[in-house]
Amino acid sequence: MAEIERKWLVRTLPSTLERWPSSRLEQGYLAITDDVEVRVRRFDGDAARLTVKSSPALSRVEEEMALEDGAFDRLWPLTEGRRLVKVRHTREDAPGVVFELDLYEDALDGLVTLEVEFADEAASERFAPPPWAGREVTGDKAYANQTLAVHGRP
Amino acid sequence: MAEIERKWLVRTLPSTLERWPSSRLEQGYLAITDDVEVRVRRFDGDAARLTVKSSPALSRVEEEMALEDGAFDRLWPLTEGRRLVKVRHTREDAPGVVFELDLYEDALDGLVTLEVEFADEAASERFAPPPWAGREVTGDKAYANQTLAVHGRP
Repeated sequence: MAEIERKWLVRTLPSTLERWPSSRLEQGYLAITDDVEVRVRRFDGDAARLTVKSSPALSRVEEEMALEDGAFDRLWPLTEGRRLVKVRHTREDAPGVVFELDLYEDALDGLVTLEVEFADEAASERFAPPPWAGREVTGDKAYANQTLAVHGRP
Repeated sequence: MAEIERKWLVRTLPSTLERWPSSRLEQGYLAITDDVEVRVRRFDGDAARLTVKSSPALSRVEEEMALEDGAFDRLWPLTEGRRLVKVRHTREDAPGVVFELDLYEDALDGLVTLEVEFADEAASERFAPPPWAGREVTGDKAYANQTLAVHGRP
């Protein structure tokens, strides 16, 4: 299933945010080359994972494997300068419309984005963003995870 | 335990080689950067593994994880141009002295090396190589796995 997502910058935090379930995400890139990205990722409460993804130029490969927390902690130092740490708040805005509001930390402190996942194209097209959302950055490479991790806030 | 190893080129194959146990090794690098190498590796009969190793310049990290064969096969195409495929013949030459004779294939076809593992420094120093061994290449970067995989036969 292809994910249908749109993304916005957030101007002001929604007043209900404290009541959205949240968890902290640590994501770091071990390697970014012309052929692959290799990243580790941990949501608090979940198992850590290592993912190998082919570059968009190659035919698509994506492999994910579970990591023990010990392995994650040992690999994390190798991601220095290529990290995203954020608290993700999640809420179902309507049936099949899921909000993910990310508050970035550390080097990206102050950046707040809203990703909205849709069940289908039609839902994505008729969606009107909430008033606290700012500029739409769907498809903007400057706000892609890898770019943010390596180059910081646009 | 630190491995104590020496390495030679092989001039002629030992006459007994057919009787040494052997297995085929496929090893490919997904990524080689200033900070890490990420490789996949499979000995026939054994489980495939993915290994993340820090570059020698950083404090040493090495994490290995098991891969299903399916995952190995999907990742292998991403190692193109950075591979070592060889048949390894193994034999205990004397107690604590293990011979690993590697016959390389594909891009490295024709290269044959002998690695000898020792139980301790003293055994390593008093060892006399067999008559079929040629030049010693212990510590020679041109014969390191990563160099062979990327740059081919020296």
